[in-house]
Amino acid sequence: MTEFETLWSEIAGIGRVGRLGGYRRFAWTEPDLVLRQWFVDCADRRGMSTEQDRNGNLWAWWFPPGWAGDPRDAFVTGSHLDSVPDGGAFDGPLGVVSAFAAVTQLQEAGVEPRTPIGVVAFSDEEGARFGVACVGSQLSTGALAPERALGLRDPDGRTLAEVLEATGRDPGSVGRDRRLRDRVGVFVELHVEQGRALDLLDRPLAVASSIWPHGRWRLSFTGQANHAGATRMVDRRDPMLAYAASVASARSRAVQHGCVATFGKLSVQPNGANAIASSVESWLDARAGSQTELDLLTREIFTDAAEHADAEGVRLQVRAESESPIVEFPHAVRDRIVRALTAFGDVPVLATAAGHDAGVLSTVVPSAMVFVRNPTGVSHAPDEHAEPSDCHLGVTALAALMKEWAAA
Amino acid sequence: MTEFETLWSEIAGIGRVGRLGGYRRFAWTEPDLVLRQWFVDCADRRGMSTEQDRNGNLWAWWFPPGWAGDPRDAFVTGSHLDSVPDGGAFDGPLGVVSAFAAVTQLQEAGVEPRTPIGVVAFSDEEGARFGVACVGSQLSTGALAPERALGLRDPDGRTLAEVLEATGRDPGSVGRDRRLRDRVGVFVELHVEQGRALDLLDRPLAVASSIWPHGRWRLSFTGQANHAGATRMVDRRDPMLAYAASVASARSRAVQHGCVATFGKLSVQPNGANAIASSVESWLDARAGSQTELDLLTREIFTDAAEHADAEGVRLQVRAESESPIVEFPHAVRDRIVRALTAFGDVPVLATAAGHDAGVLSTVVPSAMVFVRNPTGVSHAPDEHAEPSDCHLGVTALAALMKEWAAA
Repeated sequence: MTEFETLWSEIAGIGRVGRLGGYRRFAWTEPDLVLRQWFVDCADRRGMSTEQDRNGNLWAWWFPPGWAGDPRDAFVTGSHLDSVPDGGAFDGPLGVVSAFAAVTQLQEAGVEPRTPIGVVAFSDEEGARFGVACVGSQLSTGALAPERALGLRDPDGRTLAEVLEATGRDPGSVGRDRRLRDRVGVFVELHVEQGRALDLLDRPLAVASSIWPHGRWRLSFTGQANHAGATRMVDRRDPMLAYAASVASARSRAVQHGCVATFGKLSVQPNGANAIASSVESWLDARAGSQTELDLLTREIFTDAAEHADAEGVRLQVRAESESPIVEFPHAVRDRIVRALTAFGDVPVLATAAGHDAGVLSTVVPSAMVFVRNPTGVSHAPDEHAEPSDCHLGVTALAALMKEWAAA
Repeated sequence: MTEFETLWSEIAGIGRVGRLGGYRRFAWTEPDLVLRQWFVDCADRRGMSTEQDRNGNLWAWWFPPGWAGDPRDAFVTGSHLDSVPDGGAFDGPLGVVSAFAAVTQLQEAGVEPRTPIGVVAFSDEEGARFGVACVGSQLSTGALAPERALGLRDPDGRTLAEVLEATGRDPGSVGRDRRLRDRVGVFVELHVEQGRALDLLDRPLAVASSIWPHGRWRLSFTGQANHAGATRMVDRRDPMLAYAASVASARSRAVQHGCVATFGKLSVQPNGANAIASSVESWLDARAGSQTELDLLTREIFTDAAEHADAEGVRLQVRAESESPIVEFPHAVRDRIVRALTAFGDVPVLATAAGHDAGVLSTVVPSAMVFVRNPTGVSHAPDEHAEPSDCHLGVTALAALMKEWAAA
C-alpha cells in the first residue's frame, strides 16, 4: 500500500451511511470530530506540530530544522473534511490526504524545508449543517461576521455557538485571524474536479483560473392550506404550483444563458398527502461565468417566480443566503504551478463553478487550486470518483509544489 | 355558555401548535390519548356507558331505561378526533362535540330513548401518522386487513402494532367487528363542510348524496445526485425537473376534466442546497365525480409523468397507496333526514370529494352525513371555520334526528 492508500483507507469508513455508501460528515458531528482526531494523528506521525485556530480550522506545521516561533511565509496546502448530505469520498478529504502523503514523500526522500510547510483542514466548508458554506475560512478572512456565524442554526435548532460550546470550543474566540497574511505565503488547494473537463481533455491534472460567481437564495412561496379533495382547482392558492412553474422557468433561463440553476432543497408545510400545502420553502443555487450573467439570470428567475406566484394567488419572498463574487486566482501563482508541473505534461487552466476555501482565502493571501480528474464528473454524490493513478499523480504534484516553494 | 361551547372550549387547547394555531392530533400520540380520555369523561357525565372496540374506536351508549345487554339497532352519530398536520379545529371534533351536546339537549328536555343512541369516535381517520386513512373504521368493516394495518409505519419507523402495544392496546385483537351490523341501525356523521357550496347557497346545513371516488398514489422520481455548480444543465438527471413538470401537467388535466389533483407531500433526497437531488418522492391525491373520470385522470397524469421522467433521464415508479370507490349514501336514510329537518328550512343534498368514516361504514350499515356550513370553504388548515350559530343548528338537527330514529 502506498502512503496515500493507507491514509485513504483509514478514513474510508468514517461517516459513511447506508446502502448508497454516501458520507454524512457534517461540521462538529461525531464523524467530523473523529476526522479531526485523525488529522492530529497524521501530523504527529510526521513530526508536524498541530494547532486549532480560533475558528476550529486545523493546521499541521512542518518546520525547517531549527525554526523557532510562529510559521511565516509558509507553503500551505489542504482542503476540508466535512461533506454534503450523502456526499462522495473525494470532495475535501482528497486534498488533505494528498497533502499528508506529499509530506511523507518528501520526508522519505530526505528533503528538508527551508520555509514552513503547512497542511490545513478548514471547518465546515460545505455548509450542510448550518446553511452557510466555508464558515471556517470565511471567519478567518473576516468575510463572515462572528455574530452572524454564531447565530446560525442547524436543522435541530441548535446554534453554531451552542454546538461549538458542546464540543469544547470557545464561541467567544471566533473571528478574523489576523495572523493569516503573515503565516501563509501561498495556499494551494488540491481538489477532485467537479465536472468532466479533464476527462474530455484526457489530462489528469489542471490548475484553476477562476471560480464562477455564485449564490444561494431562499424562495418562500406561501399560499393557503386546504383540503385536497374538497377544494376546487379554481379556489386554490397552492404554493406547490407556483414552485413547480418556477423550477421549470429557472431551468429554461439557465440553459438559455449557459449558466446553472438548481432547486435541490425543499421544505413543504404541512406536507400531508391530503392537504394542499400552505407553504413551500425552496433553495435556489445559481452560478454563471460572470457577475453580469449571474445578475441577469437570477433577476429573470425571480421575476418569473413572482409572476407564477401572482398567477396562483401565492405570496413570494426571496432572500439571499449567500452571494460569492467571482474569484480570479492570481496569475503569477498559477503560472508558477504550471511551470513546476511541466514533468506532468500539459496542465490545462480551467474555471470552476464550485465554491472553495481557496476562493475565500484568495482575498487575503495568494491562492491557487489543482484539480484531479474525475472520470464521470459526478460530485456531491456517492458515485464521485477519481482513479488511484490520478490521485497518486496529485500527491506527486503537491510534493513538487512543496519543493518549489519551500525547499528549493 | 351553551353545552356546545363548554365542550368546545374543553378541547380547544389539546394538540394545538405554534403560532399558526393548527392542530397536530395524530393517532395514538399524546393529544389523541388526552382526547380519548375526554370522550370517556363526556360519556360518564351523561350517564352513558363507554367501550373501546377491538380497533380502538370509542363508543358511548345511551340506553333506554331498563335496557339489558348489548346495543342493538342503535342510532349512532359521531366522527373522529384526530387531525391532519396543522389541521383545523372542526374536521372530526365538530361531529363528536355536536353529538354529546345533542344528547344533553334531549336529556335536559326529559326525552328518553326507546332504542339505544350511540356516540362514536373512530380511530385514525386522517391517516396523518401511518399514511392510510380511516384505519379504525376500515378495520371494523373488514376493508383493511389486520396484517396490513399492523405493519404500517409512522415517520419514525414505528409500526402501528408497536404503537398500539405501547399505549396499552392489544394488536392481536385488531380486525373486523362482526357486531357492527346488528348494533348500528343507522350511522349519521355530522361534519364541517369542506367546500363553499353551503355558503354559495346561503344555507346552514346539507345532507350528503355521495363521496367522490378518490385515491392516493406515490410517485418516486429517481435521478442522479450531483454538484449543483459543476454539473452542466445538459449532463443532469435531475428528478426535481421531472417532478415539477408532472405537477404542472396534473393541474392541467384536473382542470380540463373538472376533477381535483394535488401534490401536497414530498420527500427530497439528499435535500442539500448545493446538490442536485438524487430522488423526489411525491404523493398524488386525485378525486373525480365518477370512477371512469378518476381512472382517465390518473392514467393521463401517470403517462405525462412518465414522459417527463423519460425526457430528464429519470426513473419513475408509481404505487397506489389507497383507492376508494364512489360511495352513494342510501336514499331512504337521506330522504328521512331531509324530512326530519324541515324545521330548518331547505336542506340541500350535496356530493363531497372528501373521504369519511361514514363512507367506510356505508358498506356495512345504512349511513348518512350532515354538513355544517363553512363560510370560507377552508379545511385541513388552521383557518377552517364554522360560525357558532351554524354549529348550534347542527346540534339541534342531530337532536332532532336522535328523536326521529330512537325516541319517536
